[in-house]
Amino acid sequence: MDKLTIAGRSFASRLMVGTGKFASNELMAAALNASGSDIVTVALRRVDIDKPDDDLLAHIDRDRFLLLPNTSGARDAEEAVRLARLARAAGCEPWVKLEVTPDPYYLLPDPIETLKAAEILVKDGFTVLPYINADPVLAKHLQEVGTATVMPLGAPIGTNKGVRTRDSIAIIIEQAIVPVVVDAGLGAPSHAAEAMEMGADAVLVNTALAVTPDPARMAAAFAKGVEAGREAYLAGLGAIKDQAEASSPLTGFLRD
Amino acid sequence: MDKLTIAGRSFASRLMVGTGKFASNELMAAALNASGSDIVTVALRRVDIDKPDDDLLAHIDRDRFLLLPNTSGARDAEEAVRLARLARAAGCEPWVKLEVTPDPYYLLPDPIETLKAAEILVKDGFTVLPYINADPVLAKHLQEVGTATVMPLGAPIGTNKGVRTRDSIAIIIEQAIVPVVVDAGLGAPSHAAEAMEMGADAVLVNTALAVTPDPARMAAAFAKGVEAGREAYLAGLGAIKDQAEASSPLTGFLRD
Amino acid sequence: MDKLTIAGRSFASRLMVGTGKFASNELMAAALNASGSDIVTVALRRVDIDKPDDDLLAHIDRDRFLLLPNTSGARDAEEAVRLARLARAAGCEPWVKLEVTPDPYYLLPDPIETLKAAEILVKDGFTVLPYINADPVLAKHLQEVGTATVMPLGAPIGTNKGVRTRDSIAIIIEQAIVPVVVDAGLGAPSHAAEAMEMGADAVLVNTALAVTPDPARMAAAFAKGVEAGREAYLAGLGAIKDQAEASSPLTGFLRD
Amino acid sequence: MDKLTIAGRSFASRLMVGTGKFASNELMAAALNASGSDIVTVALRRVDIDKPDDDLLAHIDRDRFLLLPNTSGARDAEEAVRLARLARAAGCEPWVKLEVTPDPYYLLPDPIETLKAAEILVKDGFTVLPYINADPVLAKHLQEVGTATVMPLGAPIGTNKGVRTRDSIAIIIEQAIVPVVVDAGLGAPSHAAEAMEMGADAVLVNTALAVTPDPARMAAAFAKGVEAGREAYLAGLGAIKDQAEASSPLTGFLRD
Repeated sequence: MDKLTIAGRSFASRLMVGTGKFASNELMAAALNASGSDIVTVALRRVDIDKPDDDLLAHIDRDRFLLLPNTSGARDAEEAVRLARLARAAGCEPWVKLEVTPDPYYLLPDPIETLKAAEILVKDGFTVLPYINADPVLAKHLQEVGTATVMPLGAPIGTNKGVRTRDSIAIIIEQAIVPVVVDAGLGAPSHAAEAMEMGADAVLVNTALAVTPDPARMAAAFAKGVEAGREAYLAGLGAIKDQAEASSPLTGFLRD
Repeated sequence: MDKLTIAGRSFASRLMVGTGKFASNELMAAALNASGSDIVTVALRRVDIDKPDDDLLAHIDRDRFLLLPNTSGARDAEEAVRLARLARAAGCEPWVKLEVTPDPYYLLPDPIETLKAAEILVKDGFTVLPYINADPVLAKHLQEVGTATVMPLGAPIGTNKGVRTRDSIAIIIEQAIVPVVVDAGLGAPSHAAEAMEMGADAVLVNTALAVTPDPARMAAAFAKGVEAGREAYLAGLGAIKDQAEASSPLTGFLRD
Repeated sequence: MDKLTIAGRSFASRLMVGTGKFASNELMAAALNASGSDIVTVALRRVDIDKPDDDLLAHIDRDRFLLLPNTSGARDAEEAVRLARLARAAGCEPWVKLEVTPDPYYLLPDPIETLKAAEILVKDGFTVLPYINADPVLAKHLQEVGTATVMPLGAPIGTNKGVRTRDSIAIIIEQAIVPVVVDAGLGAPSHAAEAMEMGADAVLVNTALAVTPDPARMAAAFAKGVEAGREAYLAGLGAIKDQAEASSPLTGFLRD
Repeated sequence: MDKLTIAGRSFASRLMVGTGKFASNELMAAALNASGSDIVTVALRRVDIDKPDDDLLAHIDRDRFLLLPNTSGARDAEEAVRLARLARAAGCEPWVKLEVTPDPYYLLPDPIETLKAAEILVKDGFTVLPYINADPVLAKHLQEVGTATVMPLGAPIGTNKGVRTRDSIAIIIEQAIVPVVVDAGLGAPSHAAEAMEMGADAVLVNTALAVTPDPARMAAAFAKGVEAGREAYLAGLGAIKDQAEASSPLTGFLRD
């Protein structure tokens, strides 16, 4: 598969994975390994980023994975910026998955505060990957302030509904000048494949891996789904038609 | 991936491919090879099944692939039965993909004539794989007369619309005592993955491979999509929910 | 609204209603009245069709409504034919909604037995309105044996899922020479409107009226939905587009 | 139908209509009349709001309709505010449909500039009805600054795609403290009915009326669709189920 490049850095895999909600850190580690991912995101509020023996972090091989801290739990720009800076101070690379979610119930992102935080963090030297609603105009604003990707949601976090925001994602992809990563709501490999077939550059998955009885097997399945979708996008999908076409010309063989 | 068993015979791949509408036999052969398929279907009216130098057949490695003749073009039971018998007389194995499509425009299958032909062919010793509308009651009737699979359509042939008959396919799978192969209408690897995630035993693809500029690449993509869907089905997909769940517990980290 | 004509008989309303599953006969009667329907279907096995004081029948004004007996519960052609003949013998008009549903769980129709019963009943002088899966080829067969309508399902009975069989219904409508009545699965007025916008001639609703706390209000809502869909179909719907068009030309008003 | 109340003012109709893109002002006027609407929106840049003989305005009966000026064409908050103030200065009531659409192609709304303009206009005494992406967090922000409604899009303007943003609209409705008006993308009465069934307080339609050969008939159809959806919402829709329920209990009538 062709490489994914974010902020000048290349990645072999187009599947990013999250680390929340797994039944155990062992199951999580097995899923990370099976996923083939290069980028793993961790909620800063869940770990002691400056303690080498933090149990969650100990299960992530940092030679293999880029640890992408996220600001999950931040309710406004100020909290998100503070979290990102703490991570950097603790020795993390200055990459951040920016999440600003004032609503604790649906965990939907705040367009205003996300843009505000993105602008501050970009100026502060961070490589910023913002989680957003599938809003093409907001996606443009974020790219204008210098984010390294945009990460529109397919459906609300944790719902497993798939690419429900298809029309908007298509416009975001069409207009994007940075990689588009579909994040949240993808509950099955077919959803990941669909996003990739549309031309998304990558997807991020968490809940779908964490809630299955066999996270490693599901992670491998998502890896294949992402590759399938990417390859199909590169090969070129056929148009959707209302009328069937015969799969073989009629020769009159039987009716001569 | 676990094996697919049809009529006592085991197959490593759960992707079947058709041979119609490719721009050239070379492109077709490349797609067959890349697909990893074990079963390849050929329209009997398109080939001289008893001539070893038929150009289409010469491009299919019969040591590697099970050649599954189909009765495409047959408008009623009588024509379908006649085609199947001609193939067997010419030395083909007695397996037949039964297609009875009186309407030359949408190529939709005839439930009455398909059941009639299936009954005759089963009694005649054939292993019968019937192409049908996604009709659970018809699927039951066919299984009762002894077909080796049922092959409900996802959407009309050649439309690339995907699994539009989802509700009915789910019921067919739930009630089936033979393998369910989703046939027709699958236009992208995500569609194939979706069918497999629902519990289909296999899928058959043709148009989606034939109409892309790069059939071999698309065939490999479908192979991955099928595997992704099967593995996800075996791992166990999470439920679809209306409400998001946080991907990590709140620790109050920031707000202490 | 333009009239609906079935077997030479005209009806002002394009909404048919069923009588099953209401909490009381009084609520049912209120729904029938509010629906504005002309055709009301009753399961023969539920009523004593030859007793003038049957409680269900006593709640249906037969001067106002055409009572359309249905063969719900019949598992094969023989049972359906027997039920239809009993109804006629008891003085019903020779109209029958033909339902043959061997599966007691999903109540899906049997294509083989339905066609068989239709042929017998048409020859026997009945006006036959068959309930079928959304199968265009079966719909053609039924029209060829002389049914007065075809009644494809939108979704399995009682599911409230709407017009899930949209692709097939569109083909049935395109090819039909008798009225197409979408039956089963319509759970909301928007579903009824959608079917009518596609060009269906009528719809039949039951569960959606029976399960709401206010059946009469819901029946009136469905009546409006049906009219809305029919009028829109006659006016001509706009095409679905991927690209927005401005709703007003740019004049440069602000930017001169 | 129960009344719609916006900013303390009551309206009998829950259908709002736009005035762009009609083939003639006469056809537009016929559609407005047939719609039964109380609120009609006009693009400020298209009219000479202070000239009593403006041709478009002359076709709108201002005793019957509340003229709702919109800021269509504004690319940022400043332009939108300026347009709104010009309208008020010309004698319009201080109601404004706020549209800020920097992208001339898809005409999608700008969340940042819309919130900025809303805040200014509310402080300035306007009753503000903002057109927005289906973004629940943005909808909350707008309500916090005092908008009189929120008007999330169902699909991009002019696409006729229907309620594609269903998941987000459901959340907006659930959390709203002001009326929710689904605006843009509704191409058929079934779409309008669907939005109302979900609990939307009103819908706004323009393209669907303007592009049909018979705008007045289509407007009447939308009026019925809106009423159907509202009444169904008030009656209470049945749940969507996977399993059919028999529409009548089995009595064993035939099988005794």
